[in-house]
Amino acid sequence: MKLLLKLAFLGTNYCGYQVQKNGATIQEELNKASKALFGFDCDIVGCSRTDSGVHANEFCATVCKKGASQIETSIPIQSVPSAFNSLLPSDIAVKEASFVPDTFHARYDVKYKEYVYRFYNGKVRDPFEEGRSLCLPKPIDKDTVELMSKAAGYFCGTHDFLSYMAQGSRVESTIRTVFYAEVFTFGDIITFKVAADGFLYNMVRIMAGTLLMVANGKIPPEDIVKITDSRNRCAAGMTAPAYGLYLNKVEY
Amino acid sequence: MKLLLKLAFLGTNYCGYQVQKNGATIQEELNKASKALFGFDCDIVGCSRTDSGVHANEFCATVCKKGASQIETSIPIQSVPSAFNSLLPSDIAVKEASFVPDTFHARYDVKYKEYVYRFYNGKVRDPFEEGRSLCLPKPIDKDTVELMSKAAGYFCGTHDFLSYMAQGSRVESTIRTVFYAEVFTFGDIITFKVAADGFLYNMVRIMAGTLLMVANGKIPPEDIVKITDSRNRCAAGMTAPAYGLYLNKVEY
Repeated sequence: MKLLLKLAFLGTNYCGYQVQKNGATIQEELNKASKALFGFDCDIVGCSRTDSGVHANEFCATVCKKGASQIETSIPIQSVPSAFNSLLPSDIAVKEASFVPDTFHARYDVKYKEYVYRFYNGKVRDPFEEGRSLCLPKPIDKDTVELMSKAAGYFCGTHDFLSYMAQGSRVESTIRTVFYAEVFTFGDIITFKVAADGFLYNMVRIMAGTLLMVANGKIPPEDIVKITDSRNRCAAGMTAPAYGLYLNKVEY
Repeated sequence: MKLLLKLAFLGTNYCGYQVQKNGATIQEELNKASKALFGFDCDIVGCSRTDSGVHANEFCATVCKKGASQIETSIPIQSVPSAFNSLLPSDIAVKEASFVPDTFHARYDVKYKEYVYRFYNGKVRDPFEEGRSLCLPKPIDKDTVELMSKAAGYFCGTHDFLSYMAQGSRVESTIRTVFYAEVFTFGDIITFKVAADGFLYNMVRIMAGTLLMVANGKIPPEDIVKITDSRNRCAAGMTAPAYGLYLNKVEY
């Protein structure tokens, strides 16, 4: 059996998930905590890489003894979250833990992932939203949010999402299936939510930036179809900053 | 005319509001920003001292030319917030600005202040609530929240609040009038809200700690009356940590 952890983390102080030579990462903290908890080195496999500054309301990772495909522990499974949390920094928390078969793979077995991108639409910046949402000071009314949501709807389905991929990544195919995509408001927060079987490099952040073109009245929602069909990164909007992005759900 | 600023700040990185020899303070940041904006030293008077780590959703302060009781500026009043915000650190923001008469006093003219104390009632800690609420891992059900709210109700009225005052403060009178006090939940957050014409040193934090005695079943709500009447700090609960406390509203 492998151990599957459901985590949440505030990404502000990390250079993303994956271990890097320079800078703190979530994986490195999990490595340290696992070794302290179990007394041996572990292999940690995450469901996804995340960029520097990106947050997670739900992130999944498996823990095995290093070089093995399983782990043995006398710690009762219901005590695993609190045991990890006593060892992890305060900006990372294990929310749930369970055992999964040896064959389980945290990345390859993902059915879909859901991301949210948070915009803060207040007149002046909010100290409590700093590093947690992109501030859009110009008021966005309900009709405009509806236009953004309509535009997001055009992301749904199986498409070549090359227009929404940043350079510097190597993938065999740029075709992905988006299962749902919508935009909604709650107080001063405008949220873009999107789920897909996989995401290209910076895909959600470029989608978010493209929705801002709709918010600013530069393009009508229907133009998303043209932008997608163009297979041209330049047709899409800016890459919205990492700090507004949250991995929100991982389904296996 | 004086300038009245309505501020919000995340108190995590500050040693409270008032200028101190050691450590960053909100007032010091306002001093620096005011001087940069107006080109001369200013006197900043805040509505209240706040402890290290305490936050504010609304905090009021007046700005005058140093040694004067007024300020002259060619900056249009509607541009003052953004002008300040371009100079202040990201964890402090000016939300609104207005002119008030020379005779206005930010502290003495307060009719009432409203504080909130935030408890996070999730099974495991939440990285996004770190430093912003007190984590209470043991589930508190709706009935218990009602008991807490009933208990809070006993704070209302004009009483001697000596039982809820930390040592180390000098005041002429420990009698204050609480206008309203309640406890309510929203999601995983339990909020204690209280408004009074004035607060003793650590009063809200000790009230919050005393409500936890009700939450933990140690005392029934009615015991608040006895605790208040005892005029004895030892009868009340612990001083809840500063990071759960927010100045929420200031009325003149």
